[in-house]
Amino acid sequence: MKGLYLENVHVGQRFRSDAYGVTEAAMMEFARQFDPQPFHLDHAAAEGSVFAGLAASGWHTAAIAMRLLMTGPMQFAGGAVGLGVDELRWPTAVRPNDTIRLETEIMATRASRSKPGYGIVRIRNIATNQDGEVVLSYEANAMVRCGPITSA
Amino acid sequence: MKGLYLENVHVGQRFRSDAYGVTEAAMMEFARQFDPQPFHLDHAAAEGSVFAGLAASGWHTAAIAMRLLMTGPMQFAGGAVGLGVDELRWPTAVRPNDTIRLETEIMATRASRSKPGYGIVRIRNIATNQDGEVVLSYEANAMVRCGPITSA
Repeated sequence: MKGLYLENVHVGQRFRSDAYGVTEAAMMEFARQFDPQPFHLDHAAAEGSVFAGLAASGWHTAAIAMRLLMTGPMQFAGGAVGLGVDELRWPTAVRPNDTIRLETEIMATRASRSKPGYGIVRIRNIATNQDGEVVLSYEANAMVRCGPITSA
Repeated sequence: MKGLYLENVHVGQRFRSDAYGVTEAAMMEFARQFDPQPFHLDHAAAEGSVFAGLAASGWHTAAIAMRLLMTGPMQFAGGAVGLGVDELRWPTAVRPNDTIRLETEIMATRASRSKPGYGIVRIRNIATNQDGEVVLSYEANAMVRCGPITSA
């Protein structure tokens, strides 16, 4: 199977994604489906809110970061199963026409205790906009495959 | 403004959402956009994965929980701005045709230290499927408005 195995990544390794542009239409479509609050849907209401203008749902920002992770350079063989996310933060709101990039750093790697042939990778994800402001950060554990055993 | 203010909720208070049905088409559409991994998109690949069958993206599950929160009984005046999420977990995967419900508990309330007129509510969200299995859990801080001052 093509892609990375647990043994192919190391602590401190970093991966950078391509850019992803967010349109106002996409922001509003996501918000209508999943987070229908006035400051995600209506310009006038957003002006009077703490955002002082239209802002993307934080869950939309998180979904965009996942897209950047899954279409970026860190491709594990058979995929990576998210086990949990900690300290998810949105220091700066995503605005219409922002361009988002993701940087992923490997924080730790270990074999799975419960599932032979699998390992756990702890990553830190930081998404930034075109001005370098952090729009999302979190740490996560993902389950990935260990490499096939090869004879010496 | 209609809705709840900081002073209208108390620690230990619980809110229960309506049910939300997840179709296979919706799961695949979300996955294609934001989490294009084989076990979210392809039956045969999903059978051979740790999910042993098609599973929703965890970020789709989180977005559905947000929808249930935002269309449920806990409606804050002017909305609730998510500040951060901790210990986001997906103990059981969401499957095609699952029905999801959300229960929200108020864990803490306090005035905002930085923003007069606003308060911080800490909530615990637990989403379950039709069999009562937990499909998502997390704690979050949200910024909400304090009530208008009224003369005695």
